[in-house]
Amino acid sequence: MPSALPALADQVAGCPTYVQDYLAACATRIDAEIAQVLEAEVKDPWLRGAITYHFGWAGADFVPLPAAQRAAGGKRLRPALALLCYECARVNRGGAGAEDEIAIAFATALELVHNYSLIHDDIQDRDLLRRGRPTVWSVYGQAQAINVGNCLHAAGFAACRGRGRATGGNVLVGELIASLATASLEMTWGQRRDLMFETLDDVTVDMYLQMIAGKTAALIACATYGGALLAYADPSAHQPLPAYAEFGCQLGMGFQIRDDILGIWGKETQTGKARGGDIRRRKKSLPVLLALQEASPGARARLRALYAMTTDLTSDQERKVRSILDECGAQALAQRHADLHSRRALSALARAAGRPEARRENPFFGALEQLTGLATTRTG
Amino acid sequence: MPSALPALADQVAGCPTYVQDYLAACATRIDAEIAQVLEAEVKDPWLRGAITYHFGWAGADFVPLPAAQRAAGGKRLRPALALLCYECARVNRGGAGAEDEIAIAFATALELVHNYSLIHDDIQDRDLLRRGRPTVWSVYGQAQAINVGNCLHAAGFAACRGRGRATGGNVLVGELIASLATASLEMTWGQRRDLMFETLDDVTVDMYLQMIAGKTAALIACATYGGALLAYADPSAHQPLPAYAEFGCQLGMGFQIRDDILGIWGKETQTGKARGGDIRRRKKSLPVLLALQEASPGARARLRALYAMTTDLTSDQERKVRSILDECGAQALAQRHADLHSRRALSALARAAGRPEARRENPFFGALEQLTGLATTRTG
Repeated sequence: MPSALPALADQVAGCPTYVQDYLAACATRIDAEIAQVLEAEVKDPWLRGAITYHFGWAGADFVPLPAAQRAAGGKRLRPALALLCYECARVNRGGAGAEDEIAIAFATALELVHNYSLIHDDIQDRDLLRRGRPTVWSVYGQAQAINVGNCLHAAGFAACRGRGRATGGNVLVGELIASLATASLEMTWGQRRDLMFETLDDVTVDMYLQMIAGKTAALIACATYGGALLAYADPSAHQPLPAYAEFGCQLGMGFQIRDDILGIWGKETQTGKARGGDIRRRKKSLPVLLALQEASPGARARLRALYAMTTDLTSDQERKVRSILDECGAQALAQRHADLHSRRALSALARAAGRPEARRENPFFGALEQLTGLATTRTG
Repeated sequence: MPSALPALADQVAGCPTYVQDYLAACATRIDAEIAQVLEAEVKDPWLRGAITYHFGWAGADFVPLPAAQRAAGGKRLRPALALLCYECARVNRGGAGAEDEIAIAFATALELVHNYSLIHDDIQDRDLLRRGRPTVWSVYGQAQAINVGNCLHAAGFAACRGRGRATGGNVLVGELIASLATASLEMTWGQRRDLMFETLDDVTVDMYLQMIAGKTAALIACATYGGALLAYADPSAHQPLPAYAEFGCQLGMGFQIRDDILGIWGKETQTGKARGGDIRRRKKSLPVLLALQEASPGARARLRALYAMTTDLTSDQERKVRSILDECGAQALAQRHADLHSRRALSALARAAGRPEARRENPFFGALEQLTGLATTRTG
């Protein structure tokens, strides 16, 4: 089976722990690609340095860190999904239409856009730490950090062309950039709601689901749609592209809900986040919204009062919130939501990948199924 | 002569004040297009409202303002340049290859990207007013304002496709978006330098010119290049596209230098900006840098000391700076720089527009010449 990414594809075939291995190999490959894109597209050494710091590859003084001291990076979930969907669709349509270089470029672009949103998120939330290191704004100041994020945002669009920069070029690249622009727009709608929830008393579960559909799921849907689009080489309506987009959307919803659960009950050593941080900052994540719906009237009133505070909660108040959530089974209720989206994702994926016999013979379909399970059951 | 924009083209032909008329007609047309793009691309009513407020078409409560109460908008220089270059190149190559809808879409995208940068600039500079109205961040808070800017940035990329959203589509659209991404990247390099100049003592004229090449000229060069590209329909090297890009770059440099001059000597009623604001905020604009080079040693030391302050200058200190600038003829020195770039722009434009007889018969060439003069001699 010819593959865009031989080294990665080898690790998929017949390895029992293959999704984790694929993710690790993909992260290494994409990180190398990000470094090359930054070299090619970001001509300003200061901006490149600040971005390299953000990715955990250099200190705040831009001096590259030795491999052993490098901070653990992100999961590179979006690139992995884009590449797996590209491979899955490519196998399904018989291995033809490979656009390997653009697939890697698009996967890289997704990660750049994702990281622009992280840098701006940290400014907006006044977060001092990300993955255990001072955030970009807390190191370089807010004005420069806004600009660093904007640079990554633009770099994402520039990166879609691929390093070959074939002009006169590929119609698919235009379509990919357009879908990236739409996803980036949807991210701002989600972010608008998320910011507004901070000062809004009556956030409902429906409002929350709309918020994460934009903030998290839109870019993941763009990844799965765009990857498959490259394999089909034509965004016409008769292809399974809508099913690929739906797959990414549902997986993204499940992924974010699992993130909310880990934000409250996750182990600090596994999540890399301070335990209870989401509660102390009174974040209206899904478990809290479900508790406000499902808890007894008394517990609900206490929870509401705690979340109506205007400052961070104390450790004692955090414990009170935690016991209200535990009493009404908020974790299981939220996990039920995550599982629902996971099932919907698997169903869309099956539609996307065609008849059962085609799916059985497609190792990338199996990898995507595993990844879907992982997204909503992971512990870190 | 068939034209993409009959109403605008009519006003160009044979009207003695035609550039101003063209600019006014273009602004009306582009503003209508921006409104339609926002309706189509920005589905979130809150974000659309905040953007509408920024453009001066609605109050802070999103209620549309009657036409008479609408704030005077920007000049829409970038869209006008893109459309004029499109028309100029189209006439030159014989009127064929018209891509009218995409030309309008691209012109609109340029204005969206320009305005994203204004919204973020105001946050970074802590500016409270723009065109006499409270800035977006001072109305909706900084976190939401960052997001409003990001929304416009993404909307710019999304808008390039045009409202028809022809997929499977136009190779030129991919090339336009790529050039917009590159310009947007260059803008962040310029902005990085501009922000750094605030705390840097030894800013040289060369450093300043590099800064405005990114911050201002890159997007204007993208406008002139992209407009011409649409007319030539093929970004190959044998066409006058590099000359169109150079024209925009030089015009952009001249435009920004004139802006610096108006920021010190302009009339408040004509510029819409507080007189002396640039001096009070100790902005290292070109006239100041030239004075630091050219003034007598004593005056230079006094100027340096005033600009080393860490707070805004008082009215008295502003007067002192002004007299140092006037004594060494900083306005004329800066204008000489503006004129130099204006001449270079005209020379690049002549190269772009072909042989003299072709230029004489091309009304859009004349309009672009006029606009170049206007950019560096305007009073508001």
